[in-house]
This record gives sequence, C-alpha cells and structure tokens, in this order.
Amino acid sequence: MSNSFPPKKHLIGLVGFGTVARGLCQILSEKRAYLLKELHFDFEIVAVTTRSRGTMYHPSGLSLSTLMACAESKTPFTEHLKAWNSETMIRKSNATIIVELADSILTTGEPALSHCRAAFETGKHVVSGNKGPAALAYSELRALADQKGCAFLNEATVLSGTPVFSFIRTALAGNKILGLRGILNGTTNYMLREMEAGISYKLALEKADSQGFLEADKMADVGGFDAQAKLAILANILFNQSLNLDDIKRKGITELSELDIQTALREGKRWKLVASLTLKKNQILAEVKPEALPFSDPLSQVSGTLNAITFSTDLLGDVTLTGPGAGSVETGYGILSDLLTINTGVLT
Amino acid sequence: MSNSFPPKKHLIGLVGFGTVARGLCQILSEKRAYLLKELHFDFEIVAVTTRSRGTMYHPSGLSLSTLMACAESKTPFTEHLKAWNSETMIRKSNATIIVELADSILTTGEPALSHCRAAFETGKHVVSGNKGPAALAYSELRALADQKGCAFLNEATVLSGTPVFSFIRTALAGNKILGLRGILNGTTNYMLREMEAGISYKLALEKADSQGFLEADKMADVGGFDAQAKLAILANILFNQSLNLDDIKRKGITELSELDIQTALREGKRWKLVASLTLKKNQILAEVKPEALPFSDPLSQVSGTLNAITFSTDLLGDVTLTGPGAGSVETGYGILSDLLTINTGVLT
Repeated sequence: MSNSFPPKKHLIGLVGFGTVARGLCQILSEKRAYLLKELHFDFEIVAVTTRSRGTMYHPSGLSLSTLMACAESKTPFTEHLKAWNSETMIRKSNATIIVELADSILTTGEPALSHCRAAFETGKHVVSGNKGPAALAYSELRALADQKGCAFLNEATVLSGTPVFSFIRTALAGNKILGLRGILNGTTNYMLREMEAGISYKLALEKADSQGFLEADKMADVGGFDAQAKLAILANILFNQSLNLDDIKRKGITELSELDIQTALREGKRWKLVASLTLKKNQILAEVKPEALPFSDPLSQVSGTLNAITFSTDLLGDVTLTGPGAGSVETGYGILSDLLTINTGVLT
Repeated sequence: MSNSFPPKKHLIGLVGFGTVARGLCQILSEKRAYLLKELHFDFEIVAVTTRSRGTMYHPSGLSLSTLMACAESKTPFTEHLKAWNSETMIRKSNATIIVELADSILTTGEPALSHCRAAFETGKHVVSGNKGPAALAYSELRALADQKGCAFLNEATVLSGTPVFSFIRTALAGNKILGLRGILNGTTNYMLREMEAGISYKLALEKADSQGFLEADKMADVGGFDAQAKLAILANILFNQSLNLDDIKRKGITELSELDIQTALREGKRWKLVASLTLKKNQILAEVKPEALPFSDPLSQVSGTLNAITFSTDLLGDVTLTGPGAGSVETGYGILSDLLTINTGVLT
C-alpha cells in the first residue's frame, strides 16, 4: 500500500507498556514478515518509556523478543537503559511515530495531552490509545499536527480494534455521515445482559469487576463517562466539532432496577446504554443514556462485551459495524491500524 | 486521497444504462464538487453504450445533466451518437475505466465476461456490477488485469453498496480472514420475515414480486443461485480461490413450510438463508443453505432486505458488517466506491 519502494522504515516510540502495548508487540512480532510483504510496512520499535520501569532506547531498534520477554515480567528494564522520562524520549529520540499509551486521567487528559504536544512540536506522528487527547483537545492537537504535516490518529480509543475511523475514511468514502447511534461501552452492556438473566445491579457490578471489565474508576463505565468521552471523539473526528464533555448529555445505568429490566423484557425490549450523535442544520446533538430498545433494533442484539455503531449515511442509509470493544490484542490491532494508515501516506 | 496534483482525470465508459448506472449518474451529478475537493476524484463520462438505445460518445465528456435526462426517458439516444456496439466502444473509446453493467446471464457470464476481456486487452480498468465475471472467471480476468496493470474491482456485486471488499482491504488490513457467514440475498430474507408474520411461501413470493424484489429468473433468489454466485465472488477475491459454482453446495428456501417457520419461532429461532465460507488447512468449504438461527445469533436479527456478513478474523475475532443489499443509489455507490479505489492508486 505504500507508494515508496523500498518502503520507508517507521521508527516507533512507545509511551507506556501496559496491556495494549503488549498486544501490539505480540502482533508486530507474529506478523512482521507478513506486514512487510503484503502491506509494505517496515518498522522498528526504538524506544519504550514507562513511569515505573524506566526507559529503553536504541536508535536502530529494540528486539521484539526482548520486548516480549519484558512484557511477561513486571521488573524494571535492564537493557538499553536511558535516563529519559517520557517527554524527553518523545523530544530527543529518533522515533518518527509516538504511540501514546501512558496511564492518563480522563478528566484532564494528562499526561497524554502533554505527550501529544511534545510529539507534534518535534514533528512526530501520534497514534493515541488514550481517549483524553481527542476527547478534550482535538481541535488544538489537529491544528498542531497539521502545521507540521503530522498524523494524529485515534482508532483504538472508541471500539478498541474494530476500525471505526478507517471504515468511514476509506470504506464509506464519498458518503456524508448524518448521525450515529452506538453501544460504546462493553462493561455496561455485559452488566445489563447479566441483569436480564435475573441478577441484581449490585451483583452484576461485582461480576464485571471480578472479570476485570471495570475501569479503575467504576463510575467511568456505569456512570456513562467512558461512553461520553468516546462520543466526544466521534463528534470531533467525524463531524469536525470542538465538543467539550459538558456538551454531551450523560446518564449512566446506575438507576436501572431489576424491575425495569424485566418489565422491558416482557414488552419485547432490552435496556442498552446508547450513545447518539445527530446532525441537524449543522448543530450537533450528542447524548448518552439508557434506552429500552425493541428486539427489532439491531443494537438491542449486541450482546456481552461486543460494541456496535450504526451510521446514518446519505447514500447507503444505515450501515452497522459490530465488533470487539476491548482486549489486549484487539486494542493492539487498533494501534496497528493507525500505523498502517500512516504507512499508506494518505494523511500526511 | 490521490497522490497526484492536479488529480488525474478518469474517463469513464458505461456499458449498460439501467437502474445501477442511473444511481451512479445521480450520485456523480450531486457530488461532483465534493468528490473533487475532498477526495481529489476528477472524472468525465465519455461513453454510454446500450443494446437497445444506441451508443453516446464524446471524448472530452458527456454532460451529466444530459445523461440524467436520458435516464428519465426510455427512448433511443439522440445526442453524440456513435455507431459502435459495446465491444467497439470498449476497444476504441478513450475511456480509461469501463464500468460494466450490461444485462448478462449468470450461468455464462456473457456478455459481461467478453466486455471485461476486451477492456483488459486494451489496457482499461474494469469496475463490474455484474456477478458473472468474478464468480465464473476471476483467476483468468485477474491475470489479464495484472498483465496490463489494470484494476478489476467488483464491490457492487455482493452487498450492493455496502463496502465489503474495501472494508477488508483497508479497514481490516493486517487481519487474516479465517471464514465468513452471511445473509447475501435480501429477497429471501424479506420473504422469510413475511412468512414469520404468518403468510404462506406462495404469498410471500407474490409479495416480493409485486415489490420488484425478484430477479427475472425467480429461482435465482429462492433457489439460492444468487447467494451462491456472491459466495463464489467472496471466495475468489478474499481467499484467492478459483471456485466454480458447482464447488459450492446450494440449497434454497423453496422447501421451507409455514410449519417449519412457526416451529422455529416457538423455539426462539429464525430461518435464514445463510451463505458460509470456512478455511480449513487451506481447503475452502463453501455452502448456501437455510439455517434456523437462535435469536442470539446476530445474523438472525438482520431483517427485511438488509444484508450482513460476519467475518472471522485472527486478530479481532468476529466483526459484522450490516447494510443495504439492493437499491439504485446504493448499488451506484458500490460502483463509485471502486472508482474511488482506482483513484487512490493503491491497486495499480
């Protein structure tokens, strides 16, 4: 897909080394030859920087097998150590693409936001797995990126690896997107299905927690904050808006009772946490709220931790994309998807 | 998306001027400025050739408003007449892309097949809206196209405008597709839903006919031949196979009774005509048959004339795409999607 032969080698700097980075390294390790041959994607990971384990750096590339071994352990790095913090790595390394996966706070976007700025200031592309940058400061970061001819991509932030943005940009190219409705939070979707099976909200929450589905801040899921941030990202990228989180009405599932769930079922409906965007006369209406959907609504059938978005388009009517909304390899693929987009050169 | 500035102008020759061509002309007419500005897609339609209305040709382009007026009437063409048949237009016109939409016979692929060969022999890209070429002779035509550096694209043939091939090629790039299951025929899907509401097979068939949903040969839909051809196209393009139609087991819905439908409903299941492809040790298993799907299967919820395909992938697990499977503008968009792919230059 790249237009240059031999393909340009992308030098990747990873900020953060949690589950998503590990999923990415696993894919890159298993598919290196395939990606080069079929998609002309050539790369090295030159840096990995973390808050607790230190920074590894080698300008001609770290070995993927070393990285995979590090991924298995939790101990401080021992090879190719460099006394750099994240921001210094971003500014001083020879990385051409920064993959931003640092633990960040959703309400402030930090430190992810500062990492993005540092990358653009030094002319590096950014692939972010954090929701903060695109949810809170998309316009500012987009402008910074454009000034330097850099890509700013966020595929992994909305449906993990299910490719929303590349789907719209490439597969639906030429369509105008008029609105969307989606199930953007797998945890609440899982909980609502459990409650349909007859357990209480409290028990469903405990069950989700024991499966590791909940964010550290539980309200992020059940209060609708996670879906709200994802909806802001969709509005900002697909509809060219500058929404603040406050511009999006938000209601979580915390007030739904077992009775509500069972009453709806008897009426042929299912409660779902629905996020919606509607464009009316260039005004955007954005909202997250629980809705009792009739079984005939395709979104009512999206079960467990699956996510889905129905896009309303001018040429095709409704088109629905359903896929995973979480997972290490899945979200790692979301990051790879952006790396491949940068490789095609269409955005820069 | 194009890499050249100013963008290269594509010269389009239309073979056939039925509902799909009209849908395409309508989109091109309404979106000309948008397509140029946003996607750097510049074009002229230089020729339209038909069996019954003659051939129009102007090497620097026919006016879209003339074409739209012609689309409204059914009378022979009167302007820019040229005494060419389809094959002569393909060989002698200055078109760079042939959009192949001639009435063709599915079992032989003709005349579409001959049109494709003529186009590749004279170095022209082909966008086909006919199922025959890719279902019956994909390997041969692919080889011919490759020899001349031409594109051979078939987006509109499987799910009308719902973009299957560009979705796999771009949005799912890097994934290995392990198999798929889909509802590829909207007419039978509509009929089965009608039968669920309590009417007989015979009445459902009449209702589909009165709505204009049936192909001229009714068995194409209800006998599963249409789904079989679409499955062959998916196998040939996505799995690099050279399947004949005979390699695909086929059973239609003609033997399903009202009792079968109602019994399934009582058991929480819905009959659907399911087309499936499974890759096992590089052997492909392909089959079209009615299946009683539990309500929990997302395909059981695809209603009316909607189509859907669930792709099994190595990195993302199951990803499902649901959208329209018919319609003039929708299928016209399928053609446009391929024209935009040619415009990106990634395939040639």
